Amino acid sequence: MTRPPRQSPWRSRGGDDERPRDPRSERRGVELRIHGLNAVRAVFARRPDAIRKLYLAEARIPQLQPLLAWCVKQRVGYRVVDEPDLQKLAASAHHEGVVADILREDVHSLTAWLRELPVGPCCALWLAGVGNPHNLGAILRSAAHFGVAALLLPKHSPLALSGAAARVAEGGAEAVPLVRLGREDNVFAQLRGAGFALAATLARDGTDLFAVDLPSRLVYLIGAEGEGMDVQLAANCDLRLSIPGSGAVESLNVASATSVLLAQWRCVHPQR
Amino acid sequence: MTRPPRQSPWRSRGGDDERPRDPRSERRGVELRIHGLNAVRAVFARRPDAIRKLYLAEARIPQLQPLLAWCVKQRVGYRVVDEPDLQKLAASAHHEGVVADILREDVHSLTAWLRELPVGPCCALWLAGVGNPHNLGAILRSAAHFGVAALLLPKHSPLALSGAAARVAEGGAEAVPLVRLGREDNVFAQLRGAGFALAATLARDGTDLFAVDLPSRLVYLIGAEGEGMDVQLAANCDLRLSIPGSGAVESLNVASATSVLLAQWRCVHPQR
Repeated sequence: MTRPPRQSPWRSRGGDDERPRDPRSERRGVELRIHGLNAVRAVFARRPDAIRKLYLAEARIPQLQPLLAWCVKQRVGYRVVDEPDLQKLAASAHHEGVVADILREDVHSLTAWLRELPVGPCCALWLAGVGNPHNLGAILRSAAHFGVAALLLPKHSPLALSGAAARVAEGGAEAVPLVRLGREDNVFAQLRGAGFALAATLARDGTDLFAVDLPSRLVYLIGAEGEGMDVQLAANCDLRLSIPGSGAVESLNVASATSVLLAQWRCVHPQR
Repeated sequence: MTRPPRQSPWRSRGGDDERPRDPRSERRGVELRIHGLNAVRAVFARRPDAIRKLYLAEARIPQLQPLLAWCVKQRVGYRVVDEPDLQKLAASAHHEGVVADILREDVHSLTAWLRELPVGPCCALWLAGVGNPHNLGAILRSAAHFGVAALLLPKHSPLALSGAAARVAEGGAEAVPLVRLGREDNVFAQLRGAGFALAATLARDGTDLFAVDLPSRLVYLIGAEGEGMDVQLAANCDLRLSIPGSGAVESLNVASATSVLLAQWRCVHPQR
């Protein structure tokens, strides 16, 4: 990651001395660099203390006044930088004029997540193979829109929130907790014990999504882009669902399919 | 567009003389360069005569045997090229090992399209502001999946199929006709005359998509990414619909929203 040049001091009220850093934030992987206007705004709205550094384009100053005022008050360093530096800082041309270093949110264990979960209708997504950060971001955005209770990540998946995923999520990354799963047999038992049905999603030959009685506590398992769902994992589920279609394309995009699945659940269980 | 180096002759059975070219194909805009495995395969499946040139990676030869055999038989030039040349030819790293120059399909007029349209349930999309080629491609993919009858493009919109859109559409560009609209007042009259209801789609404050009685002949109007739907255009429609959500994000991605709208129409009118 490119760091700002040393000759440009951080701006913060009360001198150049920076805010004491949480020692955790220095550990590899605990701090995350994000970009995108809605992504940064969502962190500021929900957990402003997580913002450790802010870089912005001059043109963004008016829109980010509340955040800048907070940075000044809390002595969080911010810096107005030009376009090439924003691109370098974000490692992306899609920075939308703002980059922030934030503390990563804790990823929950399944046990901890289930312990806090209220009774009643609840929908979650188990990302059983999704690997593309843009798809993760797109799924987070839709998941946030439909009030999904969590994204469940497989034990050994490298999938984690990235700057690109947070931007594509348009703030949705702040609305949907991430849960790291354990062993699959335990996961099935724990989820079923908490009243969830598990529904594998298949590009074809599954039960018609629009003709099935969707359970009120449901985990959709979303397979890999391209290869789709692992056959054994799908066989272990309570339902195997497909979104009926014309057959003119092999499948929907994984994020579009997820949106349709979530919409259908919400259509049937509007109380949530 | 980068053309192949002259020293590499086109391969075609029967010598170096190329197939006579349709003079239209030389006109600007009539020929289109596409890339992506499913995009090229879909053109080959539906209108192989539209393929004018083919470039492929050596690793793709086994998968594209039927197409290559056809090229040889029809004396369509093809060439095995390496990765950097494929990137240059496609102007994209996402070429998936195959690039083709094809004849663009005709864009229909609304009058011509309506003349051929069968009676009965029918859903179409009016792209009233979508500008991003990736979103166009993603919408085409979902539209193909759900059997959408056409994508209607505004009179003065620069929106047209591109190589990037065709790749993202994963073959869906071959399944959904494009229709170029005329003046808005005429369009409303023509569509209503053909029994269509027009439904504007709004990020918020519209009628709940899941609570409305969706007409069997329906045109969804899809607004611009970001700004959304033109207010006057929405006011002129028969319905103004929103996909209910948590409010945690401003809206769904336009392609995800379109998938949900199409899924809901198909859920209510499964006969199509």
